[in-house]
Amino acid sequence: MSARSLDGTATATRIRAELADRIARFTAAAGRPPALGIVLAGDDPASQIYVSNKLRTAGEAGCRAELFRLPADASLDDTLAVVARLNADEAFDGILVQSPLPKGMGRDAEQRVFDAVSPAKDVDGFHAQNVGLLVQKRARLVACTPSGVMQLLAREGIALAGKRAVVIGRSDIVGKPMALLLLHQDATVTICHSRTPDVAALASEADILVAAVGRPAYVTPAYVKPGATVIDVGINRVDDAALVANWYPEGHPRRLQFEKKRTLVIGDVYPAVWAVAGAVTPVPGGVGPLTIAMLLANTVTAAEARAGLLSAD
Amino acid sequence: MSARSLDGTATATRIRAELADRIARFTAAAGRPPALGIVLAGDDPASQIYVSNKLRTAGEAGCRAELFRLPADASLDDTLAVVARLNADEAFDGILVQSPLPKGMGRDAEQRVFDAVSPAKDVDGFHAQNVGLLVQKRARLVACTPSGVMQLLAREGIALAGKRAVVIGRSDIVGKPMALLLLHQDATVTICHSRTPDVAALASEADILVAAVGRPAYVTPAYVKPGATVIDVGINRVDDAALVANWYPEGHPRRLQFEKKRTLVIGDVYPAVWAVAGAVTPVPGGVGPLTIAMLLANTVTAAEARAGLLSAD
Repeated sequence: MSARSLDGTATATRIRAELADRIARFTAAAGRPPALGIVLAGDDPASQIYVSNKLRTAGEAGCRAELFRLPADASLDDTLAVVARLNADEAFDGILVQSPLPKGMGRDAEQRVFDAVSPAKDVDGFHAQNVGLLVQKRARLVACTPSGVMQLLAREGIALAGKRAVVIGRSDIVGKPMALLLLHQDATVTICHSRTPDVAALASEADILVAAVGRPAYVTPAYVKPGATVIDVGINRVDDAALVANWYPEGHPRRLQFEKKRTLVIGDVYPAVWAVAGAVTPVPGGVGPLTIAMLLANTVTAAEARAGLLSAD
Repeated sequence: MSARSLDGTATATRIRAELADRIARFTAAAGRPPALGIVLAGDDPASQIYVSNKLRTAGEAGCRAELFRLPADASLDDTLAVVARLNADEAFDGILVQSPLPKGMGRDAEQRVFDAVSPAKDVDGFHAQNVGLLVQKRARLVACTPSGVMQLLAREGIALAGKRAVVIGRSDIVGKPMALLLLHQDATVTICHSRTPDVAALASEADILVAAVGRPAYVTPAYVKPGATVIDVGINRVDDAALVANWYPEGHPRRLQFEKKRTLVIGDVYPAVWAVAGAVTPVPGGVGPLTIAMLLANTVTAAEARAGLLSAD
């Protein structure tokens, strides 16, 4: 357990403190706080927790955050209607549609709803327009998880220029934007994925390794160059005692935690990686808090941009 | 000189032949051929050659192609006005603004003009909306050079899934879209650039190596794994006899060509790479002809999409 812990909770707290000043200035200038509308359809328990965290964080920071609920049997059109109303409502700066949407809305429902959000209010950074601007290195609203990781790397003083970065995972919301952001900071970036034959060999060349696989403890020490920075994006819930016993020795606080609750949240990074890496983001308390902080940052940025308070960049 | 030559001219001819059928069907259905408007400001000699090639190719294929010229001292607003007119003109399916724009229009003139082109008519694939759709693997209009390379790789039967691909260069119009397209075909992709410390070491791990550097003969044999496929995107004009003498032995046809014309177009790939690689795109006659063929393909795709002739994909 020699690696430095990259404390996402502390960094997120600092980010929120810095935003407080921008929020106060916006509120004074605009006569109202930055406002975020969150659309939640159905009653997925995890979604409800995520949404209440987002609402609380925004509210505590001095933003207005309002929840728009739809029943589990709501139609795609119902959802699109709420988004259209929030797009048109001048009093809202940011719109977030919590995924997943209920399956009854159809297979491409999420894409259609994300496409419907006005790019100027797209605090998730999922709209094609904002994704394209990211490629062109001129985005204001960037997906929250990868931009949170960039904040953490910058504030922890981890050099990127000229370094090898390997991103495992190629999702639209983490892997691909993460690779672009690292590239724009002059890292040499490789994207590995399910079709890569020998991920461990490539990953172990990385100075910065980002695991966004969604498989508990996928990244073993064999994937990690000694001293590397390892960013664990995974949030996996595990209920299997045998797995937990593999990862943590008897008496380890995490194992005790599991034995009490019979469930544990674990990242994509195998615990033994801490003995090899130079720095690791813990799960929980690493990337997760940063994601919510960046949602807040995007809401403030959207509000400032809409009010003409941002200088051209 | 053992590598197979990947004949871009022949592939471009096949692509154009396949488009002839779509052009005929569109013309019958719409009562007019697909139409491309090209905007050319100033009198850069290379631009004039590019534009006349594009006009000729489109015309020969049965498209309507019209040139809109602006003087070298035209303003950015003049150029934007032409684009706005073409956006609004239902008779035009595609709009291409030839770069570079005259320096007098300002530093960000190209970006502003590209942003002004309607995404539905953006046959260059430069608009942020289309770039974002590319990231999300659902673009219809993709930058011509990288999409031409993908056509060549597919038609030459070069496997990509599970292979290592290295792209040297990270421009918005070649390097980044190239990396995304290769990723979407399940290659494991690395992007190298000017800040990468040891490009040769990384490049020489590639099964597919794309050189988009813009430096003549940059990729030497040390950059190439034996048997690799090497895609040469560079088009560099060289006037230095000493350089040419380095690359080609006395009596070599390319050296004789230089001695006659005192100038030579050479790619980013060192000639001796042909002795190491498995397959190489020649310059000229490799990627260049494909770029123009894909401009034509994009024009036809834009026309079909605008007329509702494309099935949803």
